[in-house]
Amino acid sequence: MRASRFLFATLRETPNDAEVISHQLMLRAGMIRKLASGLYTWLPMGVRVLNKVEAIVREEMNRSGSLEVFMPVTQPAGLWEESGRYVQYGPELLRFKDRHTNDFVLGPTHEEVITDLARNELKSYKQLPINFYQIQTKFRDEIRPRFGVMRSREFIMKDAYSFHADQASLQETYDVMYETYCRIFSRLGLNFRPVQADTGSIGGSGSHEFHVLASSGEDDIAFSTDSDYAANVEMAEAVLVGERAAPAQELKTVDTPDQKTIADVSAFLNSDPAHSVKALLVQGVADEKGQIPVVALFLRGDHELNEIKAEKHPLIAAPLTFATEAQISEYNLTPGFCGPQGLVEKGIAVIVDRAASVLSDFVAGANETDKHATGVNWERDAQFTEVYDLRNVVEGDPSPDGQGTILIKRGIEVGHIFQLGKKYSEALGCKVLGDDGKPLVVTMGCYGIGVTRVVASAIEQNFDDKGIIWPSAIAPFEVAIVPMNAQKSPRTLEAAEALYAELQAKGYDVLLDDRNERPGVKFSDLELTGIPHRIVIGEKGLDAGTFEYKGRRDEESVNLSKDELLAKIAK
Amino acid sequence: MRASRFLFATLRETPNDAEVISHQLMLRAGMIRKLASGLYTWLPMGVRVLNKVEAIVREEMNRSGSLEVFMPVTQPAGLWEESGRYVQYGPELLRFKDRHTNDFVLGPTHEEVITDLARNELKSYKQLPINFYQIQTKFRDEIRPRFGVMRSREFIMKDAYSFHADQASLQETYDVMYETYCRIFSRLGLNFRPVQADTGSIGGSGSHEFHVLASSGEDDIAFSTDSDYAANVEMAEAVLVGERAAPAQELKTVDTPDQKTIADVSAFLNSDPAHSVKALLVQGVADEKGQIPVVALFLRGDHELNEIKAEKHPLIAAPLTFATEAQISEYNLTPGFCGPQGLVEKGIAVIVDRAASVLSDFVAGANETDKHATGVNWERDAQFTEVYDLRNVVEGDPSPDGQGTILIKRGIEVGHIFQLGKKYSEALGCKVLGDDGKPLVVTMGCYGIGVTRVVASAIEQNFDDKGIIWPSAIAPFEVAIVPMNAQKSPRTLEAAEALYAELQAKGYDVLLDDRNERPGVKFSDLELTGIPHRIVIGEKGLDAGTFEYKGRRDEESVNLSKDELLAKIAK
Repeated sequence: MRASRFLFATLRETPNDAEVISHQLMLRAGMIRKLASGLYTWLPMGVRVLNKVEAIVREEMNRSGSLEVFMPVTQPAGLWEESGRYVQYGPELLRFKDRHTNDFVLGPTHEEVITDLARNELKSYKQLPINFYQIQTKFRDEIRPRFGVMRSREFIMKDAYSFHADQASLQETYDVMYETYCRIFSRLGLNFRPVQADTGSIGGSGSHEFHVLASSGEDDIAFSTDSDYAANVEMAEAVLVGERAAPAQELKTVDTPDQKTIADVSAFLNSDPAHSVKALLVQGVADEKGQIPVVALFLRGDHELNEIKAEKHPLIAAPLTFATEAQISEYNLTPGFCGPQGLVEKGIAVIVDRAASVLSDFVAGANETDKHATGVNWERDAQFTEVYDLRNVVEGDPSPDGQGTILIKRGIEVGHIFQLGKKYSEALGCKVLGDDGKPLVVTMGCYGIGVTRVVASAIEQNFDDKGIIWPSAIAPFEVAIVPMNAQKSPRTLEAAEALYAELQAKGYDVLLDDRNERPGVKFSDLELTGIPHRIVIGEKGLDAGTFEYKGRRDEESVNLSKDELLAKIAK
Repeated sequence: MRASRFLFATLRETPNDAEVISHQLMLRAGMIRKLASGLYTWLPMGVRVLNKVEAIVREEMNRSGSLEVFMPVTQPAGLWEESGRYVQYGPELLRFKDRHTNDFVLGPTHEEVITDLARNELKSYKQLPINFYQIQTKFRDEIRPRFGVMRSREFIMKDAYSFHADQASLQETYDVMYETYCRIFSRLGLNFRPVQADTGSIGGSGSHEFHVLASSGEDDIAFSTDSDYAANVEMAEAVLVGERAAPAQELKTVDTPDQKTIADVSAFLNSDPAHSVKALLVQGVADEKGQIPVVALFLRGDHELNEIKAEKHPLIAAPLTFATEAQISEYNLTPGFCGPQGLVEKGIAVIVDRAASVLSDFVAGANETDKHATGVNWERDAQFTEVYDLRNVVEGDPSPDGQGTILIKRGIEVGHIFQLGKKYSEALGCKVLGDDGKPLVVTMGCYGIGVTRVVASAIEQNFDDKGIIWPSAIAPFEVAIVPMNAQKSPRTLEAAEALYAELQAKGYDVLLDDRNERPGVKFSDLELTGIPHRIVIGEKGLDAGTFEYKGRRDEESVNLSKDELLAKIAK
């Protein structure tokens, strides 16, 4: 591509309304422009990246045996009523009527449509397993679209849906998709982690998110220093470490006037928050009479409750709800100064986090206003109902797989694979004839990649103060050639043209910067737009038979012979 | 692709609701399925064709220098208000409100969005000409969607928009797009014609439609037997042929009781309709006082009025409107028996079609009920105001370019290139700085290809009673290999696998039909789905060292050596 015939829509200023770096750089590099809130036009510079991402995704999905389909963006509301999501989905589901006043939605996802297709087309277990995918425009009417294409209303997804006769077959395809996703994100040149994820309200049994690691990510990922273990922080198990030492101190009650927080109390008592416990009083599951008991959770003072874990305990009501004042006063408890002493005796279930359960001689509330207890010991001073994993992991915790310790980094979710089970197939009646001749409700999996989001996340992971630093596989151009003083020196332009033709013939995606601009402007543009390799053709180099080369991450340029140059840019 | 891992969703029965052959065969070949009225899911068999069409379109658009962009499907209504089309477009424009009750439309086309982009991004004439294209989903809320993807509500378009400093530059890009479209449709393997088209109400000065010739087409295309002249029938000029002979007969008035039509009168008088004229009384342009005169048009009895041509005459009101009874009675005319005699004298403009103007001794109405005149001659018996091209061409007319004669065939419009001029750039204020330093309203062109429609039109042009006959370039698979008796004979399966690997390595798109089905079922499926080359591997052939080959258009299969086989399928 000749730059003079391309749209270089670069901006020197950082646009005011762009909060995150990828949004800023995509605007500045002339990749996207905002049409309306959450709606972006992709300019030629952006489309080149998008097409490369799509091509890699398509190639790997085809290699996995998934079959490409293409479903409409507009979907009849009736299917969403069948699945129950027409009501459940909320205002992110854009609903409209056509000219005949029939109800439709703009598809935010395609479970209903593909399940409808499958129930019509699949007749026998012999046609299973089968996995369909598409690369297609989706619409989610976000209340507050932001971060450019990272959270836009219209976006491109690769979504896939698989159909199975049983769970074992689903697991097999799920594993294939897991490997396929690893190949896709590796080929895209991204530093990513597959992480165990919560299956949430959608149900189903297995789920992994694929996160691009970037400090701007919205999710906390816990992963091992020594193994490939990784999980969303809320999913990572906090394993039990160490054993409880025998009591060494006497139980004492001390005055702690006006000391409200764990930090206050610890400083006041000159103790470590890690040697204290804090109480959380929550609602238990109602008994047969509808009475809601209070359940007391105890964590180490420096740890945080993990609500998802707590909700999984059979005694605790989900969603997690704090006990009301009325409930607390019924048991004559002292909020803010609640310790475990005597609670079990009052008929309160006491659930202790694993880390808190191995403390001895610890600080706790004294169940009296403005008083704490020191030298508290489990069993001697305070009984408990059960030890349970209640907290978020923190850095330095042992990895649950027994290898290494936990590190926590931020990630951007770019992919998600999910064992749907029979949620949609049951709702829509998607059955095939089983090998026993009886109708069989199929088991489903779904697999998504946010194609437009991948582009933004690649930038969040790869940039510096000059602009984007593209992984070669998805750079809009792999190599840029800049002839110096080209308006006056036909010699440099001729040499640039010759190299341009040679590199194109070798299969490189080359930009010849033949614009009538100062070298400084060209260099800034090429850095801002993140082209991996820059070759400058000048008079001196031509005399010396060398090329001035600079990789996008290099500090300085170097003069290279043709062979050295070709070796540098070799894929 | 192994057929056992593919979705062969072929149907034996022709679906009831499919009227045209492409719709029937796309359903039967398992290419598409209906989701709702005018909404289709593309199955794997269809997507393979669609992707090949898209790839050819993209390659040729890139080659032409057009830059790919990607605009949202959802568009803010405000832009459509600026262009005036929010009101003009009618109910095919789907309008909706988002969750914040802002008005949006689902884009049926993108002139507004691209013009908005251009007015923001283009600053100087130096950035022109520039041509943007996208391949993208469109939505038109057709009142009665039909013919499958031929007239669906959601469809894929390649739409391009070019921007220019002047008309000469637009013409240059227009010519490049004309050549590009010819290359695209040639590469797709279609028998097509670029035809001159009317620019209609959208305005602008130059327009060609690209039609795939097929008997099921909705448009009549006039084209030359000897040159590449082609035009929509309503656009083709009917040139003047021959000279008027001197009068030979006397003017007579004859009784023609109850003879209403030209055919009736001609039969009654034993004359040729081509030797009669018929009158059409229409409304003229109102004078200063608002009076609407009657204008009399005369055509040969066997010819048809072309309304578009008539409307272009400065004396005739547009849109063409027939004179009212009141207007006719004002001039004391006799509808049904109106001849040209004496009309000019009554102050009526008489406009005569070229072909009617060279008649002599012809039949016309006698301006009396139930009477006709014979031996009528222009000038001697009847005056006229002007000779004008008023009629549709018919087969056998000379081609307007002077080469050959006119043939008329039916065509399916699959592409359209159009000189928009300043319609949108003026409405939206899309200006750049001109070379004189003054703001310049840009000149625009637009260029569309109905990508999904191309697929259907290729079928309308290429099918037989067994199914589709794909042009190789867009066939879902180029070659199918069928091992005979594969469940029992590992030998045929092995040979099939070897050939499958070999042809794939050579770059062919191959289907290995390893399904556990009878050969008859496989052969029917392969014919129905239109695979160009079929190779059967049987025991006998293996013994003889030959392959049983059948091209999709062949009547019989032939046994070929490997070299002969490779030559047959060579691209």
